[in-house]
Amino acid sequence: MTSQEFKKEFEERRLKVEEAIDRLLPPEDARPTIIHKAMRYSMEAGGKRIRPILLLAAHDMFPSEADPFPACVAIECLHTYSLIHDDLPCMDNSDLRRGKPTCHKQFDEAMALLAGDALLTYAFQLLAEAYESRPKIAAGLVLDLADAAGSRKLIGGQVEDVLGERDGKMTPEKLNFIHHNKTAALITSAVTMGVRLADDYSPDKLDVARQIGKNIGLAFQVIDDILDVTSDAATMGKTTGLDAANQKMTYVSLYGVERSREIAAELTQKAIALCQNLSPDCGFLKALISYMQNRIN
Amino acid sequence: MTSQEFKKEFEERRLKVEEAIDRLLPPEDARPTIIHKAMRYSMEAGGKRIRPILLLAAHDMFPSEADPFPACVAIECLHTYSLIHDDLPCMDNSDLRRGKPTCHKQFDEAMALLAGDALLTYAFQLLAEAYESRPKIAAGLVLDLADAAGSRKLIGGQVEDVLGERDGKMTPEKLNFIHHNKTAALITSAVTMGVRLADDYSPDKLDVARQIGKNIGLAFQVIDDILDVTSDAATMGKTTGLDAANQKMTYVSLYGVERSREIAAELTQKAIALCQNLSPDCGFLKALISYMQNRIN
Repeated sequence: MTSQEFKKEFEERRLKVEEAIDRLLPPEDARPTIIHKAMRYSMEAGGKRIRPILLLAAHDMFPSEADPFPACVAIECLHTYSLIHDDLPCMDNSDLRRGKPTCHKQFDEAMALLAGDALLTYAFQLLAEAYESRPKIAAGLVLDLADAAGSRKLIGGQVEDVLGERDGKMTPEKLNFIHHNKTAALITSAVTMGVRLADDYSPDKLDVARQIGKNIGLAFQVIDDILDVTSDAATMGKTTGLDAANQKMTYVSLYGVERSREIAAELTQKAIALCQNLSPDCGFLKALISYMQNRIN
Repeated sequence: MTSQEFKKEFEERRLKVEEAIDRLLPPEDARPTIIHKAMRYSMEAGGKRIRPILLLAAHDMFPSEADPFPACVAIECLHTYSLIHDDLPCMDNSDLRRGKPTCHKQFDEAMALLAGDALLTYAFQLLAEAYESRPKIAAGLVLDLADAAGSRKLIGGQVEDVLGERDGKMTPEKLNFIHHNKTAALITSAVTMGVRLADDYSPDKLDVARQIGKNIGLAFQVIDDILDVTSDAATMGKTTGLDAANQKMTYVSLYGVERSREIAAELTQKAIALCQNLSPDCGFLKALISYMQNRIN
């Protein structure tokens, strides 16, 4: 797949995801309107839609009669809820996200708290509603998403991140725990959810999907750490250099930019090598993984 | 069923629910321990366990091979998350809940936010995991619980409650919306989830369960409004008289205590009359509904 072909396909899928978000979220005029406005405000604030597009890439590799878009919107709701709550004053206290006021700045703290709660809840409601006639798929998708988002993974990573910043006692082992759980777990579930939508799949395909997701997810976070040092606010849509200013332990502070780049490249190569085991028809997924390694924001 | 028989059965079920909560929540020593401590702290802080026991009562009326206790714990996780987030400084800013420090007082605001998020997420994870081999049940339970907890119901009721207190423009219509959604929706899902666990049920049973739940749920909130006026802090385990002090519109402020009692009695009678349509074997459910009308805290 040429770079141009990839870009075209990526953009097509991204637009379909945007369209699905608009179509599948509760309408802005649903009562009470303010919560539905807040949910849509944060969901429509942009972002690369990496998780839904990864889910589509995995889904496309298997015969499937199920519509993947509700699952795409569900995982994006989950991701967006986690950002809204992370930005709250009692957490990171961030005013800007993707160059726009964060949810609690645009609305207020109570509404941001509830909009996050509502998006988290809606992720599961949407899966249960949209796949009601295919309960095995519905239940499998809920299982993967809730597991990734739970207190041992996404929330657990966030907890250790908060505690590590507070007590300053960060270790490479803790950093690894945080990256694996706060970032890689949800990215992993994007790949496994794509597989779960297939008409039929063997359990070993889920295992391969998990391994691919883990490598991509960790690479994604290492690259985030690098970009915080090497990029600028205009490109990133958020303040950069915060990790260094906060003396935060990152892959870059531990291993330096060059070695971090090598680590990200190794993880990316591992993930790409595994794609063949998922399906021979893995051109777009491989190109997507490379794109994620080379992203600039 | 005599009052003594009811009390014995109620207490037996309550103890089983307590045991299931202890057994099914992630262990306190799971990493990161602090979040699992906070989740357990709020889940083990007491409470009447009305929702799980209502779920058991509905479940007992139908032949069912499915274990109802994971569903009981899931609905209690959902209820507890909503209390933790309602108590936060940006919401009701409450220091006490059931006579004990609220989660953010015992831990801190960040941990209470995350413990609430984690319990909400775990409710769905538990349903998906525990009923993995019965995906139709798993998906149906997720559907009912997420629908009740979402932005149009539980969270929607909370939003209108917050806004009503802020702008002081409460109307009887808004009060009705709040009570139906903030309180009655989750109580309704307790009854429907009990039915969903049956080996087999006709769709009209779910409708009956919804009608019963709606009447019980509304009665429950009317009685809460009455108790805020007629009970005391020691009995309730929380500050009473707050509604009047805050000039909050309630059933009592609208209709007075006596008329509110009549309304609660009418709703209770409606619910009890419907029980027969669910199953002739409805003795415990009817007794439970009466108990809920006559509760003192």
